Amino acid sequence: MLIRRRKTVAEAVVTTPAVAFGKVVMTVQDQTTVGAAELDVLAARLSEGALTTDPDVIEAHARDEALFCPHEGAIALVRATSATDVQEVMRFASEHGVPVVPQGARSGISGGANGSPGAILLNVSRMRDVISVNEAERLVTVQPGIINQDLKDHLAPFGLSYPPDPGSVGLSSIGGNIATNAGGLCCVKYGVTRDYVRSLTVVLADGTLTKLGPQTAKGVAGLDMRHLFVGSEGTLGIVVEATLRLIPKLPDPFTAVATFPDERSGLQTVADFMAAGGVPSLLEFLDSSSLKMLNEFGDFGLDDDAGSMLIMQVDQNPADSQVIMAQFAEVAEACGALDVAYSDDPTDSAALIAARRMIQPAYEKFANAHGGGQLLDDVCLPRVAMPEFCDRLKELQESSGLMIALVAHAGDGNTHPSVFFDANDAEQTAQAQEIFGEIMRIGLELGGTITGEHGVGYLKRDWLNGELDEGSRRIQIAVKNALDPQGLLNPGKMLSAI
Amino acid sequence: MLIRRRKTVAEAVVTTPAVAFGKVVMTVQDQTTVGAAELDVLAARLSEGALTTDPDVIEAHARDEALFCPHEGAIALVRATSATDVQEVMRFASEHGVPVVPQGARSGISGGANGSPGAILLNVSRMRDVISVNEAERLVTVQPGIINQDLKDHLAPFGLSYPPDPGSVGLSSIGGNIATNAGGLCCVKYGVTRDYVRSLTVVLADGTLTKLGPQTAKGVAGLDMRHLFVGSEGTLGIVVEATLRLIPKLPDPFTAVATFPDERSGLQTVADFMAAGGVPSLLEFLDSSSLKMLNEFGDFGLDDDAGSMLIMQVDQNPADSQVIMAQFAEVAEACGALDVAYSDDPTDSAALIAARRMIQPAYEKFANAHGGGQLLDDVCLPRVAMPEFCDRLKELQESSGLMIALVAHAGDGNTHPSVFFDANDAEQTAQAQEIFGEIMRIGLELGGTITGEHGVGYLKRDWLNGELDEGSRRIQIAVKNALDPQGLLNPGKMLSAI
Repeated sequence: MLIRRRKTVAEAVVTTPAVAFGKVVMTVQDQTTVGAAELDVLAARLSEGALTTDPDVIEAHARDEALFCPHEGAIALVRATSATDVQEVMRFASEHGVPVVPQGARSGISGGANGSPGAILLNVSRMRDVISVNEAERLVTVQPGIINQDLKDHLAPFGLSYPPDPGSVGLSSIGGNIATNAGGLCCVKYGVTRDYVRSLTVVLADGTLTKLGPQTAKGVAGLDMRHLFVGSEGTLGIVVEATLRLIPKLPDPFTAVATFPDERSGLQTVADFMAAGGVPSLLEFLDSSSLKMLNEFGDFGLDDDAGSMLIMQVDQNPADSQVIMAQFAEVAEACGALDVAYSDDPTDSAALIAARRMIQPAYEKFANAHGGGQLLDDVCLPRVAMPEFCDRLKELQESSGLMIALVAHAGDGNTHPSVFFDANDAEQTAQAQEIFGEIMRIGLELGGTITGEHGVGYLKRDWLNGELDEGSRRIQIAVKNALDPQGLLNPGKMLSAI
Repeated sequence: MLIRRRKTVAEAVVTTPAVAFGKVVMTVQDQTTVGAAELDVLAARLSEGALTTDPDVIEAHARDEALFCPHEGAIALVRATSATDVQEVMRFASEHGVPVVPQGARSGISGGANGSPGAILLNVSRMRDVISVNEAERLVTVQPGIINQDLKDHLAPFGLSYPPDPGSVGLSSIGGNIATNAGGLCCVKYGVTRDYVRSLTVVLADGTLTKLGPQTAKGVAGLDMRHLFVGSEGTLGIVVEATLRLIPKLPDPFTAVATFPDERSGLQTVADFMAAGGVPSLLEFLDSSSLKMLNEFGDFGLDDDAGSMLIMQVDQNPADSQVIMAQFAEVAEACGALDVAYSDDPTDSAALIAARRMIQPAYEKFANAHGGGQLLDDVCLPRVAMPEFCDRLKELQESSGLMIALVAHAGDGNTHPSVFFDANDAEQTAQAQEIFGEIMRIGLELGGTITGEHGVGYLKRDWLNGELDEGSRRIQIAVKNALDPQGLLNPGKMLSAI
């Protein structure tokens, strides 16, 4: 087997475990190096062509979609095609003290998949098979690299659904969804990724393959490691197979759209509707800036004179759905809605949701016309706190002069404010980063969390201390160090700054 | 403050941490003792009257409902009335190396709450307040000692439901439900305790108080410690407050009852109905022995000539519910049902469920008339494996001559076989214990788990090795030792034999 080598290949830095007390162990650079010879040995143990040290290829795989996160210094990229490849990489890594960055589709926006000094990028995108569909037990077993939407498409002929639908549904992989416990638009009724993980096969830091969780609907034999791995951002081990719980095919939803004179009345409607027992299958909020940017991006015909819009879906039977939509309309009107419209035409619903799903490209178009910078935040709040939160964003926008647009999976209180800035203007860039942090601070002040579904990664690691109390930080570090005593797995991410 | 002392108070054995590699650290007896003087100091730090060393009181609190589990040797009972009490006990315990057994209502059946040598029994039954109901966010915050049914009753006037409903709903506390991730009859549609835990306040081994999990619907800031604590059986820390997710009041269900000529056809109906996309809110199985014992216990009028019975509920709107009940009837008839009957009268439904909930007293009546012994197992299986499992139980019954009765939360594949025996006959007792283990072995062979919802405790600790692979055992031990390095929390339970 041939491995391409170039003179420019950086000699890898072998790392040794740091002695840490009360901090996450992280691999520390040493004088020793892992060079081409050692990587040759690893390559020979892997599927043919899995390992490359081509710096251009490494650079092309060294980052996800996050801004302001370092990604330099990786020494190799392994594109694993089997669990055995993953095991071999971790055996090599633990033997030589080499850090490993697990990667999937790299569609994340917290830098969780970014390279780090001396690391092997371990990409599982090529492991994308559906291994089995078990209709009787309503389970599917997949490799981690499968794209969420591809899984959904695969399941449709079986009359089965895998609900979690992050905004990145067409781009992001199930492994990455598990790593961040991804959510999406459906969560208000159907929950998040964790709620659908039945069992995981993972490779541990030392290369051991283990199965976590039973195949059965219930099971309490020992500590629940499977759910600990969900949302662990590649810091505890690497998922090489996942068995996911499915539900019968989701019915076509009914859709209501309400427009409001301002943001506050739209968000108050959400809080009041949910407090009154509303059970939507989707409840999305768009502020006036987001509506304008969407209309500038595509021919969506949204009412961009409105101060905000809610899209509400309900997927019960027609009679119950009508009742819920009427209840929604009543609450919206009491909160000052300009207009409430229903549709039971699946085409209308699909068009509206397609428009909502275009928000990120629309933001990008706006950003590109204004200097290219966009920082997308992910603060989840108590629903009742959303109107106040929105007021605070407006104050920030006024005081900074930077545009802040807001969309939200509002039924869950999960807001996504975006700060736009001129990326070529250092002062504005620094200001945007400050606002990004200030948004999280406000979120915490209002009883929220710094991240509802995007994860901590590198981007938010410095804010974790503001959310977790001392005891919580301490046991998280203890668990991380217990499972990864050499600090090999995704160093510098998530818990590394607490 | 006065502490009662008696001459018979066993002098406590101070324990020191064992050095363990690959095993759970457990406190080990030493020559030093914690005596009355030290316990006096602890008592003075606690709420008045919280600590007792009265051996009769200790003995009365030293065990749960499990058979064949040791419970001797506790040196004190603390009936905590506040989180501060719990913190003080853990500070004292970690200072002196004294093991602590957390307890709630002691309604468990795996010995998880049983005393152990030198331990303080730390009972939180008196901490039973509802701290707040948040209607807007659909959350309730409670102390751990509140009884599940009391919580349900408290929520009813708010139009809110807390679904988890273990068989022990009228006896067991929320803290115990969290410790074992309790399930029940509703799980087939509404999930288990873990699915409703929003956040936990826990006291760690060293007495630190920490809050785990956000208050918000979504949140991925750091490792998910809250779900790790659910099902950890008091081995990682002590829950002193829980915020639970609620759902709008459950609608009155429609009920169908089907009888079958034998067990196999009833269980096959479950597998086929669920594979066809059935969405029951309850699906319970009773075998012929269980039907007979119920009729002998009360005037339930069940058809005990039948070989088995299914009770199926659906709680959707009338039209959808009728469709689902017809679908159920069709599947049941195809599997050979003797009779299928529906009712939309809530009184009928309630009576049937009340009968189902009387199964344990009915078993006890039968057991008492046959030597007093009953071992209740808790094997969860893939649904398709239930008919085969039932055949294997019949073979065991025939070969042993011991009665084995079966009820199951069949929609989840969660079976509860009971082995009846003469507790005064040593040979029969040993035989029953062997069968109890053999049932778990068969469960594992058929792809199941040794415990679906009762927990491992002391009773099943020796079988855990049969379910968990080496890697899984290793990381569970690592996590336990990381959070409880002195091995103080509930030693001898769950992971202690792996």
